[in-house]
Amino acid sequence: MSDITFKGWAGHNVADPTTHLTLSEITPKSFDPTDVDVAVRYCGICYTDIGSYEGELGGIAEGRVCGHEIIGEVRRIGPEVTTLKVGDVVGIGAQTDSCGECEWCAAGEENLCATKALTFGGQYIKGPSKGQMVNGGFANYWRGPEKFAVRLPDALDPASSGPLLCGGVTVFAPLKKYGAGPGKRVGVIGLGGLGHMGVLIARAMGAEVTALSRGQAKKDDALKLGASSYVGTGSDLAADLKDHANTLDIIICTINPAALPIAEYLSLLRPRGTFVMVGVVPTPLQVPTFPLIFNSLAVAGSLIGSPSQIAELFELIAAHPEAAPWVNKYRFEDINTAMADFNAGKAKYRLVVVNEENGGKL
Amino acid sequence: MSDITFKGWAGHNVADPTTHLTLSEITPKSFDPTDVDVAVRYCGICYTDIGSYEGELGGIAEGRVCGHEIIGEVRRIGPEVTTLKVGDVVGIGAQTDSCGECEWCAAGEENLCATKALTFGGQYIKGPSKGQMVNGGFANYWRGPEKFAVRLPDALDPASSGPLLCGGVTVFAPLKKYGAGPGKRVGVIGLGGLGHMGVLIARAMGAEVTALSRGQAKKDDALKLGASSYVGTGSDLAADLKDHANTLDIIICTINPAALPIAEYLSLLRPRGTFVMVGVVPTPLQVPTFPLIFNSLAVAGSLIGSPSQIAELFELIAAHPEAAPWVNKYRFEDINTAMADFNAGKAKYRLVVVNEENGGKL
Repeated sequence: MSDITFKGWAGHNVADPTTHLTLSEITPKSFDPTDVDVAVRYCGICYTDIGSYEGELGGIAEGRVCGHEIIGEVRRIGPEVTTLKVGDVVGIGAQTDSCGECEWCAAGEENLCATKALTFGGQYIKGPSKGQMVNGGFANYWRGPEKFAVRLPDALDPASSGPLLCGGVTVFAPLKKYGAGPGKRVGVIGLGGLGHMGVLIARAMGAEVTALSRGQAKKDDALKLGASSYVGTGSDLAADLKDHANTLDIIICTINPAALPIAEYLSLLRPRGTFVMVGVVPTPLQVPTFPLIFNSLAVAGSLIGSPSQIAELFELIAAHPEAAPWVNKYRFEDINTAMADFNAGKAKYRLVVVNEENGGKL
Repeated sequence: MSDITFKGWAGHNVADPTTHLTLSEITPKSFDPTDVDVAVRYCGICYTDIGSYEGELGGIAEGRVCGHEIIGEVRRIGPEVTTLKVGDVVGIGAQTDSCGECEWCAAGEENLCATKALTFGGQYIKGPSKGQMVNGGFANYWRGPEKFAVRLPDALDPASSGPLLCGGVTVFAPLKKYGAGPGKRVGVIGLGGLGHMGVLIARAMGAEVTALSRGQAKKDDALKLGASSYVGTGSDLAADLKDHANTLDIIICTINPAALPIAEYLSLLRPRGTFVMVGVVPTPLQVPTFPLIFNSLAVAGSLIGSPSQIAELFELIAAHPEAAPWVNKYRFEDINTAMADFNAGKAKYRLVVVNEENGGKL
């Protein structure tokens, strides 16, 4: 199996990089003893892939291959691999490696490791390939440490599971940390890729969910996703939220406008509530201290999730198939169309490219 | 015992109210069946007393009596009192009553009750005295429900324990909630009344403490209080904090300048760290989302503590007498001098008025 030719959709340093990905031969990392080669069947498209291709993450690297919501089949294992075998179906997310030595790695919180290698636009951090650009999942094969290839439960549908690897665990990790479950009321702001998974997952965890989005266009979908109420916001946010003041225990904020009106949103929280940001907003949040103190609130951030959290999310969705992400599938060959549709806001609610050559099903 | 004459130091609607307190006869609340009368021996002076006397809390009420770090002896109990007896030494803090019916009261988190009665400038919320101004502890007697009069352990020194009731529990509650203890690193910003208790209490909980204050004047005290390191800040905060980046798990912020440079302070936090505000800052905190998300941080607020948290703090200090608040004692009759000294920044670190008539010791 060492004669695989790795090929991926590479970005280029041109005017409109996202619509100019070309399928190119790529140099895989060195095959280390704990590595696996995975034949990619499905890969979701996340906003950060676009950001990486467009140069938001340290400039545009000629030949960069993104994609970090990967589902595929293990085709080769290194001699020191102990947890996976050839034929296993696995998922790989936004993180491809970590130092393996720090306290966060030791605690199974690899996403907090300071030297993590990101799957989109990162660099390998160990071994002979150290410093080389990471290859992501918009490719025929992914290569990396078994630690970051998480086995899918048999009951999980591989075709819709890619988005769980980044977007899904990004909302699941804070929902878990801040106690989402029966008797808790969760608000999800924004109904895009992350937001729709926020509603699905919070509901699967047993929480009562309120979805908040602009206008009324997404109301029906929100209720189908599992929200028990919907707040359509317009030009007067304070007025729109007034009837919902003091009703939520956790808010997951998946929008990132130039300036977020957080003071208005904080009015929705009950005492001890937590407002969680999962997307970077360019301007500082303007957090008023009076409600923060008088209701003992917290404004928190959260970054993706660890392999163990991904595994936990897989189990949750396997037990709640109704909470699988809603995906639109595109042929692997049509990735440029998929990127254009993503940029045009056509995702309802996550786009996935399908590699039929490797066994993916459209 | 029903022939007690209640007398307290009342504020007045004059130009400089804090230095014009006069000892006046006051009308106590109705004596309800669950009430106790407490002969006040000691009462700490907190910043919010000054604020209340000066009109920051809903204007200056003629005849208002503040004081909410009260230690005294139970002299009379109502027929339905079950937990206290005459002769018990108790403490009463910033909260004098709560609704007793909401989920927060049911959960022993009375400080989150929406209809709580504050001891400084609040109103009684139940029974015949509903709506009447609450009388605080700058008085010979305090009257209120047994629930909010917490018995002191025998090992606790009454003379220095008043400040635990408000300032102490205000820093203890978030230290507990966010996991302060052995192996954790706590930063305390500001070394005033609250800050000095933050250092003492975090150390007593087993945490390693870094104290941060302006200049070097308080360095020696900080180390004596139990801090293992001290950061004296000057005109270039970012430079002053640089060597301490990524070192703290919890920061308790006891300062409240017109605008808090929170972005610089957040650089001190390790992944999963929490920055806790305990004082209202007039302008919104400018919280940058990038570090919040990439290190999974939280910016939280916290408001005083419940009676059960006060009881827990009493036990902690009884077991760690070295962590008792540092107090300067003033005669009850000299309260106007104490207020002036407080305003002049002379507290090192908490002023307590002593009522010798009721058995307080100077």
